Amino acid sequence: MPSVSVFGAGGYTGALSAHLLDRHPSFRLTALTGRSDVGRRLDDLYPHYRVPLVLEQLDLDRHAAVDAAIVAYPHGAAAELVVELRRRGVRVVDLSADFRLRDVGVYEEWYRVHPEPALVAEAVYGLPEHYREEIRGADLVANPGCFPTAALLALAPLARAGLLQDVVIDGKSGVSGAGRAATEKTHFVTVDENTSAYSVPRHRHRPEIEQELAVLGPEVKVTFTAHLLPLDQGELVSCYVTAPAANAADLEALYRAEYEAEPFIELVATPPGVRDVRETNICRISVHRDGPTGRVVVFAVIDNLWKGAASQAVQNLNLMFGRPEGEGIS
Amino acid sequence: MPSVSVFGAGGYTGALSAHLLDRHPSFRLTALTGRSDVGRRLDDLYPHYRVPLVLEQLDLDRHAAVDAAIVAYPHGAAAELVVELRRRGVRVVDLSADFRLRDVGVYEEWYRVHPEPALVAEAVYGLPEHYREEIRGADLVANPGCFPTAALLALAPLARAGLLQDVVIDGKSGVSGAGRAATEKTHFVTVDENTSAYSVPRHRHRPEIEQELAVLGPEVKVTFTAHLLPLDQGELVSCYVTAPAANAADLEALYRAEYEAEPFIELVATPPGVRDVRETNICRISVHRDGPTGRVVVFAVIDNLWKGAASQAVQNLNLMFGRPEGEGIS
Amino acid sequence: MPSVSVFGAGGYTGALSAHLLDRHPSFRLTALTGRSDVGRRLDDLYPHYRVPLVLEQLDLDRHAAVDAAIVAYPHGAAAELVVELRRRGVRVVDLSADFRLRDVGVYEEWYRVHPEPALVAEAVYGLPEHYREEIRGADLVANPGCFPTAALLALAPLARAGLLQDVVIDGKSGVSGAGRAATEKTHFVTVDENTSAYSVPRHRHRPEIEQELAVLGPEVKVTFTAHLLPLDQGELVSCYVTAPAANAADLEALYRAEYEAEPFIELVATPPGVRDVRETNICRISVHRDGPTGRVVVFAVIDNLWKGAASQAVQNLNLMFGRPEGEGIS
Amino acid sequence: MPSVSVFGAGGYTGALSAHLLDRHPSFRLTALTGRSDVGRRLDDLYPHYRVPLVLEQLDLDRHAAVDAAIVAYPHGAAAELVVELRRRGVRVVDLSADFRLRDVGVYEEWYRVHPEPALVAEAVYGLPEHYREEIRGADLVANPGCFPTAALLALAPLARAGLLQDVVIDGKSGVSGAGRAATEKTHFVTVDENTSAYSVPRHRHRPEIEQELAVLGPEVKVTFTAHLLPLDQGELVSCYVTAPAANAADLEALYRAEYEAEPFIELVATPPGVRDVRETNICRISVHRDGPTGRVVVFAVIDNLWKGAASQAVQNLNLMFGRPEGEGIS
Repeated sequence: MPSVSVFGAGGYTGALSAHLLDRHPSFRLTALTGRSDVGRRLDDLYPHYRVPLVLEQLDLDRHAAVDAAIVAYPHGAAAELVVELRRRGVRVVDLSADFRLRDVGVYEEWYRVHPEPALVAEAVYGLPEHYREEIRGADLVANPGCFPTAALLALAPLARAGLLQDVVIDGKSGVSGAGRAATEKTHFVTVDENTSAYSVPRHRHRPEIEQELAVLGPEVKVTFTAHLLPLDQGELVSCYVTAPAANAADLEALYRAEYEAEPFIELVATPPGVRDVRETNICRISVHRDGPTGRVVVFAVIDNLWKGAASQAVQNLNLMFGRPEGEGIS
Repeated sequence: MPSVSVFGAGGYTGALSAHLLDRHPSFRLTALTGRSDVGRRLDDLYPHYRVPLVLEQLDLDRHAAVDAAIVAYPHGAAAELVVELRRRGVRVVDLSADFRLRDVGVYEEWYRVHPEPALVAEAVYGLPEHYREEIRGADLVANPGCFPTAALLALAPLARAGLLQDVVIDGKSGVSGAGRAATEKTHFVTVDENTSAYSVPRHRHRPEIEQELAVLGPEVKVTFTAHLLPLDQGELVSCYVTAPAANAADLEALYRAEYEAEPFIELVATPPGVRDVRETNICRISVHRDGPTGRVVVFAVIDNLWKGAASQAVQNLNLMFGRPEGEGIS
Repeated sequence: MPSVSVFGAGGYTGALSAHLLDRHPSFRLTALTGRSDVGRRLDDLYPHYRVPLVLEQLDLDRHAAVDAAIVAYPHGAAAELVVELRRRGVRVVDLSADFRLRDVGVYEEWYRVHPEPALVAEAVYGLPEHYREEIRGADLVANPGCFPTAALLALAPLARAGLLQDVVIDGKSGVSGAGRAATEKTHFVTVDENTSAYSVPRHRHRPEIEQELAVLGPEVKVTFTAHLLPLDQGELVSCYVTAPAANAADLEALYRAEYEAEPFIELVATPPGVRDVRETNICRISVHRDGPTGRVVVFAVIDNLWKGAASQAVQNLNLMFGRPEGEGIS
Repeated sequence: MPSVSVFGAGGYTGALSAHLLDRHPSFRLTALTGRSDVGRRLDDLYPHYRVPLVLEQLDLDRHAAVDAAIVAYPHGAAAELVVELRRRGVRVVDLSADFRLRDVGVYEEWYRVHPEPALVAEAVYGLPEHYREEIRGADLVANPGCFPTAALLALAPLARAGLLQDVVIDGKSGVSGAGRAATEKTHFVTVDENTSAYSVPRHRHRPEIEQELAVLGPEVKVTFTAHLLPLDQGELVSCYVTAPAANAADLEALYRAEYEAEPFIELVATPPGVRDVRETNICRISVHRDGPTGRVVVFAVIDNLWKGAASQAVQNLNLMFGRPEGEGIS
């Protein structure tokens, strides 16, 4: 049974990764590392995950003696650890953005100087619905961002059909998407009874969405804004596309053809709610024609911590190690 | 001091209208009518409004012997009462949609057969920022819908400048916007930790927005979707417009010119939150260039029960009766 | 594999029972019945439960041809169905209060005329921590109320030790405890940013708590009040007992002795939060001495839909059919 | 018109104090001081309060040249500032606990070494319903804690009647009561869908409650626990008292006699909700007999930031300066 360490298990996505692996029938969760919470047990920090392991100070000789790793470090900090893990032969799923953007120049425009550009080419973008075969053989998987996961699944059928024009993506996220850091922005009193857009106009998920849409069809510039909502887990993207050529029947056929064999995509007739998919690896999608304007409106919901991060990471691990894709996350 | 009755004071917007008039220095709140709650005191139903009046069964001879009325009836039901009130010389602010759409055919396409089409031409659309002078002389004011209020204030400067193209409006509303009816949709457990779009693709606020934008500039079709959020009061519209001709400086000048003299519009540099304007008559707006796409993104927030309904109704009453525009609502 | 029908699967506790049985390795979920939602699929009503069965009109010849039933009918309505099921030899876990109170007179004082008093004596009170052996042999299990579950688990060690005096139980519940009926009380706008006590001073869970405490020690009258909280699932009881004889060490020993072998009870040192046990069958308890007053304060949290209803019902079914007690609910 | 500075206006209670004074007809808000937010405008930090003043670095020569001050410093830090303000002749309402406990030994047991014990005797406990006359002549008012305010108003009639025995106070507070510091405890994800007790078993409001009850009747020890609720503003205390001598009629008469002339106390028949009093200086109380146990149950709700802190401070200022007690806060 392959052994796995989770690096950075004190944060929301690392902790959930640990939880999913701890109950996974085909992986052995070996160790957790943390930073500010070193010495605390994970089930003390996150009682509902019930993982009886202690968060340890990073010690590569011990923690990297595993078959696989999930790295849940902040953007920028992850790259150096990933390089070290790869050097030791550990297969890695990295939750950060450090290996998602294939063009290091784009990465550096949106994030910072890339600490390990040489490794970027090796990484596979970990959206199984798009890169299933590549992931099976990958040693380094760059797990997608939460908004890109939802947006790409929402728009892929249109992109492949060459129907994408004038793309507007209005994203709405629960607060867990902002991470565990206690700040004025995540204080209950700030969030409660409130909503606003953030990171306007330059949200870092935009280049990631544009990169992956360009793989499916002609290059397209998207307008993407993110909004914070007074809820914990859950993410909704409302996508607006000019696609006069598509009629309603085409749309339905297009989406059905794309997704009928996908185990974690559910097409529904009415706009889905984030609660429909809470604590699942599922993405629910509905697609609508807006007759008078010739636009297509697509809604997609995911759980930002699950399909938007940790359960998708486990889905990728399953593929990498030849396990059934949904094992441990269904 | 002009006397005012509130008809339909058991619902959220009627009750708030009663509250604002009850503490208003220049109007005398005379009577409240209700339906299912007849006989109950308003301060029993809505303790925090502290209005010590009883909801009465409609009795026009008594309740229409006033100078003015706020009608908070459901769409369709309002028109007949309004006709009767006008016949008796009462000046009316109607919170329903019955007199908002100037084209009865459009009304009937989106609502139902109009019961009183003859009166439509008499009504003034009650957005003071657009129709201040007309409202002063009006006997019947059709108070705007909540989303149209926010959307029109967000887009007016672009519309007047002829810069509106490809308009997408993504609306987000708290649950009070769905009214007081207890349904599966308004049950706490349905709404809590959830969000989804509703009334897709045909939300009734769309024709109202299109009608009023066409007054300001060339006709335009808009895509409008509404989303329900797990909060009580507050509404945010995120508007996406293709306006390659406008640069950032122009935008700021455009909005400042439009709104610098407006007492209830606040222009801000960062995306506003609905909490910034809770329980006020204020609309906060921020406008942003999305460089790579040439789009303009405008955010506007209001309190859906206040500027989106009741306090705007009082603003209109103030204008109609020669009172300072912000009296009783500042 | 024993077959099970869920009667009344449209409500919150019935639907969750169906969900737990649907994924249970040792029971076969056969049929669901409903009332207002007959003809709808459960995964349409409750997408996150993902049970692909249709809610059917009650047809005893078909639905009672099973080994076991979970009955999730309203109080009063359940008894007649239970009698019919028992007549046909079906083993029943009843979620209603109809068979919880052994004294029919007490039942009738707090509820209504009991429709089937003859069956009351046959029922076993379904709190496995107290009646494990009796449940194994039972054909009719009266599943406890949610507050009694938490309160009895919190107080049992003190009751057995004869230390219970002056018992005050302050209960706090999420809104799902109020059921799926859409009323003014469950409207989002009523609950949000609010809390208040309800059913004061006669909450129906009081006689149930008193009955079961009297089984463990001397009879005691309790003061019990319930409060509604703006959250979905979760229940906390804060229990105050005069117990001057007990010192801190005794208390810890008492609770450890009672619960060290219990799979679903967790003793913790600091007051637990309802989120610690969300979507689990676990009850977390902390016990504290209030030195200056000589009181003992005990906090217990459960998920009102899980341990407070549906997962406890499955725990009971597991015992009745010789399955591992935690199967399907761990 | 008396001039007032608010010291520590960056926190929740200081900011609200500034807001109330800014719109007060009979005080002139002169200056605000802050710590971490020096240089920011208050209406940038708290848009909904709309106070257009900048938070300044403390400069006593400038900021103490006023008639009155509201001090919203942390416990322990307030005392030294208060001493300095008094030395300069400024009349002070102090929101901290530093001058609430008359017995310095008790203060030091629950807080820390008292920095200015000499001034304690000069302070008047700022609960106008109990100390109205003393407050009128006071130069230093120690504004009560939020829970003590609600608990004392709930229990005073029983205390005066000598009916208090076995007092249990179960307090429930919104998150604003925890202050503006961003910590794990105030992170939205921690609070949302959660509730738990905190500061068990030694909450600092207990000695304050006991001190003031002992002024009204025989000394009594109380059990007090506080719970955090997922809401912003609002506080409920559920009080349980053994009072077999009191019958229902007595109770009602007792409370009516105590409160009929009080402008900010509302007696109601059913348990009040915190929303009934949100953003008001009002305390709502209901009192109930629990027949079988002979207990009396009293519920009281306040807005913890208003009557629990800032509006009560303004109520005290009104009394100190001979203004109508409810001016600016009704």
